[in-house]
Amino acid sequence: MERIRTTAAGSHIGERVRVQGWLHNLRRLGGISFIILRDGWGTIQAVTEDETALAPLRDANLAVETVLAIEGTVISNSQAPGGLELQSPRLEIITPVPTPPDIPLNKRAVNTALSNLLDHAVVLNRHPARRAVFRLAAGAMLGFRRTLTTLGFTEIQSPKIVASATESGANVFKIDYFGRPAYLAQSPQFYKQIMVGVFERVFEVGPVFRAEPHDTTRHTNEYVSLDVEFGFIRDHFTVMAMLREALAGIWETLAEGYSAELGLLEIALPPIPATIPHIHFSDAQELIYRQHGVDVRGEPDLSPQDERWLGAWAHAEHGSDFLFVTGYPMRKRPFYTHPDPSRPEYSNSFDLLFRGTELVTGGQRLHRYEDYLAALARANLPTEPFQSYLEAFRYGMPPHGGFAIGLERLLMQLTRSDNLRLTTLFPRDLTRLAP
Amino acid sequence: MERIRTTAAGSHIGERVRVQGWLHNLRRLGGISFIILRDGWGTIQAVTEDETALAPLRDANLAVETVLAIEGTVISNSQAPGGLELQSPRLEIITPVPTPPDIPLNKRAVNTALSNLLDHAVVLNRHPARRAVFRLAAGAMLGFRRTLTTLGFTEIQSPKIVASATESGANVFKIDYFGRPAYLAQSPQFYKQIMVGVFERVFEVGPVFRAEPHDTTRHTNEYVSLDVEFGFIRDHFTVMAMLREALAGIWETLAEGYSAELGLLEIALPPIPATIPHIHFSDAQELIYRQHGVDVRGEPDLSPQDERWLGAWAHAEHGSDFLFVTGYPMRKRPFYTHPDPSRPEYSNSFDLLFRGTELVTGGQRLHRYEDYLAALARANLPTEPFQSYLEAFRYGMPPHGGFAIGLERLLMQLTRSDNLRLTTLFPRDLTRLAP
Repeated sequence: MERIRTTAAGSHIGERVRVQGWLHNLRRLGGISFIILRDGWGTIQAVTEDETALAPLRDANLAVETVLAIEGTVISNSQAPGGLELQSPRLEIITPVPTPPDIPLNKRAVNTALSNLLDHAVVLNRHPARRAVFRLAAGAMLGFRRTLTTLGFTEIQSPKIVASATESGANVFKIDYFGRPAYLAQSPQFYKQIMVGVFERVFEVGPVFRAEPHDTTRHTNEYVSLDVEFGFIRDHFTVMAMLREALAGIWETLAEGYSAELGLLEIALPPIPATIPHIHFSDAQELIYRQHGVDVRGEPDLSPQDERWLGAWAHAEHGSDFLFVTGYPMRKRPFYTHPDPSRPEYSNSFDLLFRGTELVTGGQRLHRYEDYLAALARANLPTEPFQSYLEAFRYGMPPHGGFAIGLERLLMQLTRSDNLRLTTLFPRDLTRLAP
Repeated sequence: MERIRTTAAGSHIGERVRVQGWLHNLRRLGGISFIILRDGWGTIQAVTEDETALAPLRDANLAVETVLAIEGTVISNSQAPGGLELQSPRLEIITPVPTPPDIPLNKRAVNTALSNLLDHAVVLNRHPARRAVFRLAAGAMLGFRRTLTTLGFTEIQSPKIVASATESGANVFKIDYFGRPAYLAQSPQFYKQIMVGVFERVFEVGPVFRAEPHDTTRHTNEYVSLDVEFGFIRDHFTVMAMLREALAGIWETLAEGYSAELGLLEIALPPIPATIPHIHFSDAQELIYRQHGVDVRGEPDLSPQDERWLGAWAHAEHGSDFLFVTGYPMRKRPFYTHPDPSRPEYSNSFDLLFRGTELVTGGQRLHRYEDYLAALARANLPTEPFQSYLEAFRYGMPPHGGFAIGLERLLMQLTRSDNLRLTTLFPRDLTRLAP
């Protein structure tokens, strides 16, 4: 008999079907046995009063997570989880498991300390609530690519082993490359800009590596970056409008195809305004001073507390979970940042705050060769390591800009998790290199 | 005026439009000037007899690759490239370029030595024939993901920094991870298997790193791997059937959306048989002996010459550019390979030859915990570095298998390029770390 997915059982009411998966739970209640089978998509309950039907499990004393097939008749039953159950089940063991995992997968939540959860992520990511997070991550990538492809973007895969640090000398992982030093790319920044010269509109989904030695709930040392860069923009507002489209596309894909996961995690997708509200960096600092009496004016960056205040303000004032802060001071932005032509101490850059936490950074970049030479000189950087990068600008680049969304950060804030490691499949941090 | 793409001009015949891009070529012929503008999607010709229209370029003596906008009236003209041209053009310089690239982008092919081409890939990838290759790469990724998503696969992104070598101790790049040794992942093999326990069907598109010190036309040290792994298979033939679907999906996406690139590169997509022919490893060696008198029987692997012979045989015998060779000897396959139950010296694995060159490797993996313990012992490997990997099998894994397609290798063979570096965006090899 052809196997069906548990999520397809509703189309087979009254029929005999075969499902395959893991023994998620087995309970006995008043002479009735309830077997929950979990496959890659969902779960289904089988019921029987016939003890001998359970013999394949009982005789060998098998535990949950045993891999098995169940043939049964699909019955509609409003009492059953999901409204369906399999009756007259026939069990067939595929891979026996003699001992259950130390931390159960069939409770409502995974009840264990974070470090334990991460140590055993290999098995604990099977928990329906854990895997729903990573299914949403897949949905976010799908929605991102789908939207950008529709908008004429071409996907690239840039090299991760690079000859010199991308944006600054610090915080890069060093590699032994056949006896020569090399580094892991901190971002695809230079390559995505270069590729604007080829395709005009490019995106990349890939790992980035940051050797930052800090231990916070919001950082890891390897994460997935959703990168965008495109040409022929007016200024950073063109980039902000594109970012809004990308986020809306992600939301649309999640809403269409991932309602089971959103439901399980009790997530309501916050509406994305047609135009996300924006505030200039200097006005944001004024606002904080007026509203909270804390004088951050003149500070070169926003603190996490500043961001939370601004997030609360955007929610109260504009009913929006999203807020663009524009015009960060040039002195805190990388050398390729385009200044605000009317106030050159500020930049044509932005951060997108989502619920009061930075989610995306982006902006307009310099595009003239002479501007790069001047910017490198100002930053006291030698031109030699940037020869290939500079070649792109020497031979004509349009005004361009882009942004990068941290995939795990997006999921962290969407699922209201309190640690980025909870939305990272297998996190890497100061102390963690496995699994 | 809103800018349109050059490829959209056909829908605007008789209208005044604005296009933006790079000055691809400028010629004067019998008093008429022909301006070719290249944007991210195609090219369009503008014509004028009015010298003053060219003043923005001529006055500053600007070169090709200058970024500019042209407004003009779209006219259908069968003499023009693409059957369209812009008349009464008005030029506007966006980014001036005073000197042209050393190697011209507007000749039919890029005429320079490979090393020069790679040194200046930043600009030379703008050449229409070069960028067509990388657009096809994007199309291949799109088709791969689209097909697998439709078949119920979930995308994963596994970590690239790992605590120990994936498949063997040799040929890994070593990283300094906050003072500890770590390595770059040679493949997502262990993680994709682990994730079969979570999602049943997974795929990944990402970089893999091989520190192999060889200098061949078919290898680089970082490439993009299209990885698939899924559970509840019968044996490697289930995996081969899935690979056939993935390839057919890639072909379909390329045929639908990338005809301009295929046409430019003069590529006809070779038909993929509904069932790709297959031959067992030992029969393949017999065939080579019979047909060519070379006795390779007993050799543990096929040589490139063997593969070419088999490719020619598949073409002659089955009219197929594709051939599966199944059942490679266990001793040349990694420890997680599933043996052929009836002939345990052979494996349930396969290679897919495309035009006589290996394109894909795959097979069925072991799935029982005890089998892993035995296989590691047989391979003289300690279990300690594999603890997390083993945890997945300890708690129930179904029969499963998968494969990995090298993206650049696929493009190399599809475009009949003679060096893998020609289908790699920015290649990494023994001597090359930039651009």
